[in-house]
Amino acid sequence: MIVVTTIKEMQQKMIEYRKQGKTIGFVPTMGYLHEGHVTLLKEARKENDIVVLSVFVNPLQFGPNEDFDRYPRDIVRDEQIAKDAGVDVLFYPAVAEMYPRPLSVQVVVKERVDVLCGKSRPGHFDGVATVLTKLFHIVMPTRAYFGMKDAQQVAVVDGLIRDFHFPIELVAVPTVREADGLAKSSRNVYLSEEERKEAPALYAALKKAKAAIENGLRDPRAVRALIEDHLKTYTHGVIDYVEVYSYPELKPLDTLAGKIIIAIAVRFTKARLIDNITFDVES
Amino acid sequence: MIVVTTIKEMQQKMIEYRKQGKTIGFVPTMGYLHEGHVTLLKEARKENDIVVLSVFVNPLQFGPNEDFDRYPRDIVRDEQIAKDAGVDVLFYPAVAEMYPRPLSVQVVVKERVDVLCGKSRPGHFDGVATVLTKLFHIVMPTRAYFGMKDAQQVAVVDGLIRDFHFPIELVAVPTVREADGLAKSSRNVYLSEEERKEAPALYAALKKAKAAIENGLRDPRAVRALIEDHLKTYTHGVIDYVEVYSYPELKPLDTLAGKIIIAIAVRFTKARLIDNITFDVES
Repeated sequence: MIVVTTIKEMQQKMIEYRKQGKTIGFVPTMGYLHEGHVTLLKEARKENDIVVLSVFVNPLQFGPNEDFDRYPRDIVRDEQIAKDAGVDVLFYPAVAEMYPRPLSVQVVVKERVDVLCGKSRPGHFDGVATVLTKLFHIVMPTRAYFGMKDAQQVAVVDGLIRDFHFPIELVAVPTVREADGLAKSSRNVYLSEEERKEAPALYAALKKAKAAIENGLRDPRAVRALIEDHLKTYTHGVIDYVEVYSYPELKPLDTLAGKIIIAIAVRFTKARLIDNITFDVES
Repeated sequence: MIVVTTIKEMQQKMIEYRKQGKTIGFVPTMGYLHEGHVTLLKEARKENDIVVLSVFVNPLQFGPNEDFDRYPRDIVRDEQIAKDAGVDVLFYPAVAEMYPRPLSVQVVVKERVDVLCGKSRPGHFDGVATVLTKLFHIVMPTRAYFGMKDAQQVAVVDGLIRDFHFPIELVAVPTVREADGLAKSSRNVYLSEEERKEAPALYAALKKAKAAIENGLRDPRAVRALIEDHLKTYTHGVIDYVEVYSYPELKPLDTLAGKIIIAIAVRFTKARLIDNITFDVES
């Protein structure tokens, strides 16, 4: 595995790979890798000649009151995990390399953002779409891998790739979970011991809602009430949202039909957890 | 020459060329080709294996009161000119092909736009940068050619390519002029006979200013006054702006030094003409 820190060297290497006809699988991350990331890397490893991992905590996607400085970082550990997962190239640029001066252009996301996490994080997905536009041109991947854990991000990237015609295949990989159902996340380390015990209630609530829908429930308000009840009963967390939308369009539905997402966010003392499931509803 | 109207076919062809190791020169236009465009095509022909011309009147870069519907179009003539200029691929998509649904993402230009033409055309360069982002991904050029006639556009594209790391070389080609100095433009056809006779005064004013600077003038206000006097004396046009900035940063200067642009815009009855010169000022 080679580690590259400059955009120029990265582009030169990737152009060379493309010239050799190699396929490139790309996993963009903010580092502090966990099994969720490793799953993305393994998928990329299976399907491509070259696997590229980027580790870059992108300041542009953090709000002024968010945890950019506090976001966990451990590049030494990340390097080891990347090596073990069969990564060929680790791209690890400094903030000054990615943003040497004020940007003269930025990507603004206009659809699929005023709901779920985007609603409480104005500008977040603009920052995500902007850094991905940069990274896509630097890495020039054949395929880009994203976890369904952040289903809204997958929907936004789908729109970015489709509307700007990036010659890149988006691969959405199912959420990786702990044995008790908790979705893996870098932010889980912020949970207290008690909160960690409560946290599996998020996925349990989603499964309960899915079962109810499979048994005929079609009213999104009733689905939301069912989940809110479950979360209030089994956790001390504060519910940020419980939402039901079409997927990937993220539009509200009067009656559940077609592909839908049920997504929830719960605030614990020092961590905000998100989870979701997507599935087809028979009409 | 082949004519392609769909994004999918275009991308497939271009990927094939790139696989063959061919260099691609790209000239994006809104059609109604004149000698200015032909000069760009000839430059592209000299330096690349494949020359691609796009003809697309981009609604996104026209304001609500601008001349989108009235913008001249003649694809039959354009095809002939393209063939004669040695174009290999003419990309001629319909508006519904480029914008089949509301865009979920857009490029916003934040620097180099609140001056010159950008000042009186809010959102114009957002539309330019957005369609170029799409076209760059569709055509995948090695080099992209733009005329210095629209020097602000060249500055914006320079920022777009640099900040988003497009693996594309920007080639800025000098303005092509009529024998009497008038910069060639699709919009010249809107000039009345009398206005056509007055129009060379724009370039004459720029040359006069340049000569004054070469003779020691360093005060941008004096340069502007000199040009305004000339335009008021020799044309019936209404001055939109006369500006002096650093180039390509487009920042105001107290004293002229380094690379500068002098740019002017004059409104005639049915056409608004722009012209500029860029040059280095000795300090």
